[in-house]
Amino acid sequence: MNPVNLQKLFGTNTQKATVGSMARVSIQVKALQKTGPEAPFEVKVINRRDPREDDVVIDIRAAGICHSDIHTIRNEWGPAHFPLSVGHEIAGVVSAVGSGVTKWKVGDRVGVGCLVDSCGECEQCLAGFENHCLKGAVGTYNSEDVDGTITQGGYSEKVVVNERFVCSIPDELEFDVAAPLLCAGITTYSPIARWNVKEGDKVAVMGLGGLGHMGVQIAAAKGADVTVLSRSLRKAELAKTLGAARTLATTDENFFEDHVGEFDFILNTISASIPVDKYLRLLKPHGVMAVVGLPPEAQAVSFGSLIGGSKVLTGSNIGGIAETQEMLNFCAEHGLGALIEKIGVNDVDAAYERVVAGDVQFRFVIDTETFTEAEAV
Amino acid sequence: MNPVNLQKLFGTNTQKATVGSMARVSIQVKALQKTGPEAPFEVKVINRRDPREDDVVIDIRAAGICHSDIHTIRNEWGPAHFPLSVGHEIAGVVSAVGSGVTKWKVGDRVGVGCLVDSCGECEQCLAGFENHCLKGAVGTYNSEDVDGTITQGGYSEKVVVNERFVCSIPDELEFDVAAPLLCAGITTYSPIARWNVKEGDKVAVMGLGGLGHMGVQIAAAKGADVTVLSRSLRKAELAKTLGAARTLATTDENFFEDHVGEFDFILNTISASIPVDKYLRLLKPHGVMAVVGLPPEAQAVSFGSLIGGSKVLTGSNIGGIAETQEMLNFCAEHGLGALIEKIGVNDVDAAYERVVAGDVQFRFVIDTETFTEAEAV
Repeated sequence: MNPVNLQKLFGTNTQKATVGSMARVSIQVKALQKTGPEAPFEVKVINRRDPREDDVVIDIRAAGICHSDIHTIRNEWGPAHFPLSVGHEIAGVVSAVGSGVTKWKVGDRVGVGCLVDSCGECEQCLAGFENHCLKGAVGTYNSEDVDGTITQGGYSEKVVVNERFVCSIPDELEFDVAAPLLCAGITTYSPIARWNVKEGDKVAVMGLGGLGHMGVQIAAAKGADVTVLSRSLRKAELAKTLGAARTLATTDENFFEDHVGEFDFILNTISASIPVDKYLRLLKPHGVMAVVGLPPEAQAVSFGSLIGGSKVLTGSNIGGIAETQEMLNFCAEHGLGALIEKIGVNDVDAAYERVVAGDVQFRFVIDTETFTEAEAV
Repeated sequence: MNPVNLQKLFGTNTQKATVGSMARVSIQVKALQKTGPEAPFEVKVINRRDPREDDVVIDIRAAGICHSDIHTIRNEWGPAHFPLSVGHEIAGVVSAVGSGVTKWKVGDRVGVGCLVDSCGECEQCLAGFENHCLKGAVGTYNSEDVDGTITQGGYSEKVVVNERFVCSIPDELEFDVAAPLLCAGITTYSPIARWNVKEGDKVAVMGLGGLGHMGVQIAAAKGADVTVLSRSLRKAELAKTLGAARTLATTDENFFEDHVGEFDFILNTISASIPVDKYLRLLKPHGVMAVVGLPPEAQAVSFGSLIGGSKVLTGSNIGGIAETQEMLNFCAEHGLGALIEKIGVNDVDAAYERVVAGDVQFRFVIDTETFTEAEAV
């Protein structure tokens, strides 16, 4: 891409650099970063790479806060690469495209989820499962990119992404309610679609948080009879609004006895340990429990609980790009989106505390326009 | 059914009884029974019920010894109902039919597996999954029958079974190699069919015993590339004969590292505890581990092992009657059958010791003709 054109596009937010014989620019953007797990978020100016032929530049309009962001940047999933920006629920507008880009043009409404690159050649990539790339897909943040740099996430003004990892956000979806779909949406949509949840199916959703509230909406939109399983009935009214037929309190003395063999499909969004065998008993024969929450400890599973009734315990890890697009289209068609609380760039530390305390219904989304007034340190 | 005709059919092996206003007969047959878990098998004369309208009487020609028989009669799965005959791998010839029987006629070659009745009305029965009958199917032995009696298994001269629970044994299959198909065959066929194992799939079979040796044959006949996973290479040649491309020793130092992501499908026939997470790593993304062996302890499973690669851990419990017939036809078509060691009615106690010691390749089958010379006690 011609650096002169880039300068026009990005105004002062560009910087010339010469790599080998090629003149290059890198784009300077504001981003929220932490220098370590205990440090607060600070607005910093970071460099985004100069777009390659197949890259698009996206002006971020909304960035969701996922619990994975918190786990990562607090070193709860191993040491992170600091300084680091997180965020993999990104919605915005294409502001520039590389010379070889064919799928997108400036002005397109787009989203980016958990992945920004993959080999594109292995059997998984070729089958549309970039999320299972055999060479390891490149995560949107804290991941080693193909050029050896560490990817920086979406708590930022702009992001530069290979066009293959960009999805279209249908006009029906606002940026802020769409952003969380790029992770929470696809994480719940994929197992619901894979296991063919359909009209009349009895579906239970365990946990009504960021993931659960999308799972309820998606399963209900598929025509399923949805039950929320929660420790209390505190969110029962809200669950109904989302499409659940009922909420059951798992702390009720007879809960497990009263609902044996009731469900075709259980979506477990809880990241704490659960009595797996007891939940498997709630499934009908051939029933499926799909887990998308990751408890830190191994879980005890009696094989007898799987053999009796020929049941399925499975996990699901986001989804491929084509399926992510399918999910966005499905949400647009059915009027689904995340229930969100919008915050500014200075509110993220406080929001993290509230996410950990379970005090959000159901997703914080950073209004990236607030970067404009934020002073970089 | 007319008692006079029955007396003709069964000769001296009949006995008149009057239940209410109906004249009834019960059929006296020799059977191997135990009076308690420690007692030896003894040849006894037991009563089979007089055939109901929809019953068939089967002259048993061969009865397989399944490890479940041993678990049951040794009280390892809870206290059994003694005196008890076990055996649910039954092959023989129809020798009489009730007046309402439409599917079978005298002389038909037939088999009976693990089930002899079910409600026939629940959604599982109606869908052909009598094995998952919501009211509880009646097991072939040690199970409370619809009339309140305890069912007696196939280590016997004859059995009386509802016609819906009888399968046809194709002419290509000898009775003795067919008998074990009624449990070991369907137990392994059902998950292989459900998960659509097909040509070119990489399949691993864990354990090469009664179940494993059928799993290898069936998966290979489906066109899969089959690997046997065994503690040693002791049975490697035999595994090849059965259709396995190779055997790998799981005790090799680098075994788990060397085969990461290699298999589409793993059939686990081992009834001991296994390092589940390590085995799940051997699966490709979307891969399936189906367990048919029942270790006594709960197994440790990290949900991360299922979420990464969106993998499946499932169990499988025999199969429905229609699928059992499908399996028998498949085995006949592909020339499959159990590898057996034939024994007489006096050899069963010794055979049990050898099964527990893993000293059989691969199934003991009782030659029920040896009842003729055995004296009942």
